[in-house]
Amino acid sequence: MESSRSGTAGRPIKCKAAICRKAGQPLSIEEIEVDPPKAWEVRIKILCTSLCHSDLSSWKLDVEPFAIFPRIFGHEAIGVVESVGENVHEVKEGDTVLPVFHPNCGDCPDCKSSKGNGCSVFVKRPGLVHNMPRDWTSRFRGSDGQVIYHFLKVSSFSEYTVVDIANIVKIDGLFPVDRACLLSCGVCTGVGAAWKVAGVEEGSTVAIFGLGSVGLAVAEGARLRGASKIIGVDLNPEKFELGKKFGVTDFINPSGCRDRPLSEVIKEMTDGGADYCFECIGVASVMADAFASSREGYGKTIILGVEMAGTPLSLNSVELLSGKTVSGCIFGGLKPKIDIPVLAQKYLEKELNLDDFITHHLSFQEINKAFELLLQGKSLRCIMWMDE
Amino acid sequence: MESSRSGTAGRPIKCKAAICRKAGQPLSIEEIEVDPPKAWEVRIKILCTSLCHSDLSSWKLDVEPFAIFPRIFGHEAIGVVESVGENVHEVKEGDTVLPVFHPNCGDCPDCKSSKGNGCSVFVKRPGLVHNMPRDWTSRFRGSDGQVIYHFLKVSSFSEYTVVDIANIVKIDGLFPVDRACLLSCGVCTGVGAAWKVAGVEEGSTVAIFGLGSVGLAVAEGARLRGASKIIGVDLNPEKFELGKKFGVTDFINPSGCRDRPLSEVIKEMTDGGADYCFECIGVASVMADAFASSREGYGKTIILGVEMAGTPLSLNSVELLSGKTVSGCIFGGLKPKIDIPVLAQKYLEKELNLDDFITHHLSFQEINKAFELLLQGKSLRCIMWMDE
Ligand SMILES: [Zn+2]
Ligand SMILES: [Zn+2]
Ligand SMILES: [Zn+2]
Ligand SMILES: [Zn+2]
Repeated sequence: MESSRSGTAGRPIKCKAAICRKAGQPLSIEEIEVDPPKAWEVRIKILCTSLCHSDLSSWKLDVEPFAIFPRIFGHEAIGVVESVGENVHEVKEGDTVLPVFHPNCGDCPDCKSSKGNGCSVFVKRPGLVHNMPRDWTSRFRGSDGQVIYHFLKVSSFSEYTVVDIANIVKIDGLFPVDRACLLSCGVCTGVGAAWKVAGVEEGSTVAIFGLGSVGLAVAEGARLRGASKIIGVDLNPEKFELGKKFGVTDFINPSGCRDRPLSEVIKEMTDGGADYCFECIGVASVMADAFASSREGYGKTIILGVEMAGTPLSLNSVELLSGKTVSGCIFGGLKPKIDIPVLAQKYLEKELNLDDFITHHLSFQEINKAFELLLQGKSLRCIMWMDE
Repeated sequence: MESSRSGTAGRPIKCKAAICRKAGQPLSIEEIEVDPPKAWEVRIKILCTSLCHSDLSSWKLDVEPFAIFPRIFGHEAIGVVESVGENVHEVKEGDTVLPVFHPNCGDCPDCKSSKGNGCSVFVKRPGLVHNMPRDWTSRFRGSDGQVIYHFLKVSSFSEYTVVDIANIVKIDGLFPVDRACLLSCGVCTGVGAAWKVAGVEEGSTVAIFGLGSVGLAVAEGARLRGASKIIGVDLNPEKFELGKKFGVTDFINPSGCRDRPLSEVIKEMTDGGADYCFECIGVASVMADAFASSREGYGKTIILGVEMAGTPLSLNSVELLSGKTVSGCIFGGLKPKIDIPVLAQKYLEKELNLDDFITHHLSFQEINKAFELLLQGKSLRCIMWMDE
């Protein structure tokens, strides 16, 4: 059977990767060496990758211990299995796969539980986020032999990367590659939050704070679930036209509310508060706005944004007593190996809009242009093709 | 049909009530006049009433606009309908009823919704809490003609009181009177929180912060639902023996944790955090402890305590992202008219323990002794009988 293995299996691969050497600095395309996969690992040839806000915020972050360089960012991607390590039976060479930052081993008590989407296969320790998750070492080396760190267990800004099998989801090789790429992070986070975490139901009202890709994916999820009113809140007025493609029915620009609190405007529009409020920015005061805008009695506030500044969320607990709920989620509360195929199917059945998330295509060489587009709010998802 | 009406119907009734004239001062038993019920109202002859922590905290509260006197406290009781006002068809003279502070009109969109237990029949306005809910006036007058205020729409520390039909639940006249009285507030709040709000399920782990009557009722609800571990947290070590009667399996005295955070102790006992944490005290820092003690991934924290000091609940929003939830509830998320009969039935079937909540019986004349017992933590529920 050895003949079926790729010629590169078992040996390091030399390839190009976009290296970040300093927080906030342009990436440089350099030659690196990618080690073969160890046990439970998969080496993937990336087909295309896209840029997500979490890449941006980690790239900007100049605070220890998070700022660790040199490093390969990127966590939304699709690729083909080049070779697999020991104990990997779920995928084989040539399979098309999505690497996903959120693990789903399928075997641990959390994965087997019907509640939440946690996975406890990996022992948590500080080095986890910038190394491989089982042995806490890197598979990347620069041309000078220096260790290059991983990002979120994916590091897709590289022609080849190594990913743990717990972070791999197999996908039909005939599925449109760039659309599949989107299911690797942002779209799932938003659609899942509306579907699995909130459980938005027919006729309900929704308010979404922040209409980036995640917020728009929440809208798309709420639309799929039959929400009757989907209010988008964003400082950029251009987001309303864009939002309509994903089901946004109403728009509020907070800068246009003058002296009225945003929550008062939303309560008026929803006859007492939105059934479901989603915070997709990661700012504690916006989370509080979302909570205040949610319906008394049973309004749910779902936090998707990551508060990087460390500001705590401050709630009036008496306001909770009416029956309000605040939840958070990661990866939209989805179990990647189970739920990504479900969403992929919904795309094929023309229920789920993935097409409109893709605003730009670039070659991998132009990666710094993708950073600029997202920083300037000009793109939703920019697909970067490795082959071009 | 006039002959079937009680001789007192349509006229004011002179009777005894326990009046509070100043925050924190002993109540005085005085003669008052109770007006006949107006439309949608019911006048009740109280059989017995018990003292709840909310009476205590409002009695102590010396802050405008809450401290309004003279006033008749009491909101956990059972009585017999003496007469009814216009438009009341649900109960009639002679029916046994529970007055319940939380309305449930049965007709508004909230009451008809399957979500939460809100009721929007009453227009909210500041005077609501110390007057009748529809016309914002009082039915009580002192012997000098001075208005005496209501409390929580019940005011059961009186031989007669007037209650809106939205706050009345009919109960079988053969049900043990003192047991039924408990279903009017505290027991429902705790049992409902475990049953309806948390949805505690078989084999799950529970931590309860504060083992007063409400906390013990949470334990009882968790026991009914098959929780495998029910951890009680209280500074009073005597609460453990008491708690065992309601299903508490483990006990933590926070003062015995020395330098270890309480949440760390609970995480160790539950292999990662309790599935359900209940705050039954009303202190923001304890709410934060409960949140920290809840399981990553899907731990739910339920707030039952009312924070009287106004301290906000401060949460690390990043900790929410794993999938944690914080909810609040009033009256245990129960719809009184639908759910109280269900719990009453569970008592008759010997599933629900009500008996052990009753630690004392007193005559209504001894009401100040009931305050002392509760203030000193010596009682759970003290039943005060009007006839003795
Ligand atoms: Zn992402
Ligand atoms: Zn797992
Ligand atoms: Zn009460
Ligand atoms: Zn109602």
